[in-house]
Amino acid sequence: MIRVIKIGGNVIDDDRQLAGFCRDFAALEGPKVLVHGGGALGGRMQERLGIQPVRIEGRRVTDPETLQVVTMVYAGWCNKRIVSLLQAEGCPAAGLSGCDGNVICAARRAPLEIGGKTVDFGAVGDVVRESVNVPLLNALLSLGLVPVLSPINHDGAGNLLNTNADTVAAAVGAALGADLTFCFEKPGVLLDVNDPGSVLPALDAGSFRALREEGRIADGMIPKLENAFRALREGAAGVTVKQASDLLFDAGTRVTL
Amino acid sequence: MIRVIKIGGNVIDDDRQLAGFCRDFAALEGPKVLVHGGGALGGRMQERLGIQPVRIEGRRVTDPETLQVVTMVYAGWCNKRIVSLLQAEGCPAAGLSGCDGNVICAARRAPLEIGGKTVDFGAVGDVVRESVNVPLLNALLSLGLVPVLSPINHDGAGNLLNTNADTVAAAVGAALGADLTFCFEKPGVLLDVNDPGSVLPALDAGSFRALREEGRIADGMIPKLENAFRALREGAAGVTVKQASDLLFDAGTRVTL
Repeated sequence: MIRVIKIGGNVIDDDRQLAGFCRDFAALEGPKVLVHGGGALGGRMQERLGIQPVRIEGRRVTDPETLQVVTMVYAGWCNKRIVSLLQAEGCPAAGLSGCDGNVICAARRAPLEIGGKTVDFGAVGDVVRESVNVPLLNALLSLGLVPVLSPINHDGAGNLLNTNADTVAAAVGAALGADLTFCFEKPGVLLDVNDPGSVLPALDAGSFRALREEGRIADGMIPKLENAFRALREGAAGVTVKQASDLLFDAGTRVTL
Repeated sequence: MIRVIKIGGNVIDDDRQLAGFCRDFAALEGPKVLVHGGGALGGRMQERLGIQPVRIEGRRVTDPETLQVVTMVYAGWCNKRIVSLLQAEGCPAAGLSGCDGNVICAARRAPLEIGGKTVDFGAVGDVVRESVNVPLLNALLSLGLVPVLSPINHDGAGNLLNTNADTVAAAVGAALGADLTFCFEKPGVLLDVNDPGSVLPALDAGSFRALREEGRIADGMIPKLENAFRALREGAAGVTVKQASDLLFDAGTRVTL
């Protein structure tokens, strides 16, 4: 069974957390893939470069300068830093963005009519789920390599696109029929967001709907779980949501259909 | 016969030149590897970020902030931009920095005593020529992929190092027993630096020594040719120095021992 692990910005932004995570990830047995998100460095770098974040009707727009910054930070610094740390732990990591070996394509997000205005989101893409290059990922795994995927993908026509790392992880997990783990800053799905002890050990689609209606699952947890359920429907063998520091432990919330 | 092609900053900095080069490179038949240098964007980005270039006794020092910038720019933006353009031309490119699959290791340059002061060059490395991961490069070529190497390498202990792209190309060309082409801004080795018509069709080591003593080969051409001769001595099948726009033509200077 292939394992796909996704880490987010909170782990990447903290040197000690990242080092600990890389040590744990290197210790995981069997074939595995890492998907990483961005972290705060992208925004900080943009600020230092004096690039004003562009928003139209409240929506973030990825203009060409912003695409350059996120490509530099996510596909360059974050990806190579993680890969070099994993290599130092004896893990044969190899960093890939979507263009590398055409491993993942994305489609530029279509403009939307909002409040009578057309909002073009710029160089933001949605992962084309059928595009995940399973033969290439399997070939790399067969060579003993550990693919480390950045959230920068391409459209196949020479354009790079910024995409959502949770969606990348879900698409890759589904395409590989993998066991998928979303690491985030909480110990799992919490019944009470202020009580870390209220972790649900398991969550199925019916309970998710009910808890969401009651407002007990809200905010950023909703798209994350929607990605989790979608991955399961499309072929992932299993999904767990947990804290990165629990990677090697039987912990977090097991998500089932 | 594997071909290794090296392009420098002048091609990368110019959108039209880069597009034309990618079209030509995609059209080259057979197994091939591309090595790219940096370009002016690294320095420009550093300037925009307000990072003062550090020099000690006239030598450039790569402090941690500078390493972050060159990694972002070379391993991130330049590498992924080239790969996505090649993919759009139907060339199955895959970008790699030295850490990826441990393809190339570098050794941090030792501090030097200069004028009674110790100069630590920082995160600058010299390519460890024996470290070139020939089995991995051959495996990727066997998968039909075209490796695109950035000049950012690693020491295997978790540290990224900035290296010289000509040296990367020479080491890879030698290790693969490849035919190596250095593309640069002139049509070849010129007998008269001001006369583009004075291209030497061939240059051997004896003539190089003589022309260097006469001062007719000077400046940046010397280390480039030293890399060329070293590649030949260490196993490259052949070396040509030419203009990037001549890639598909029988042009430039053929370097022989």
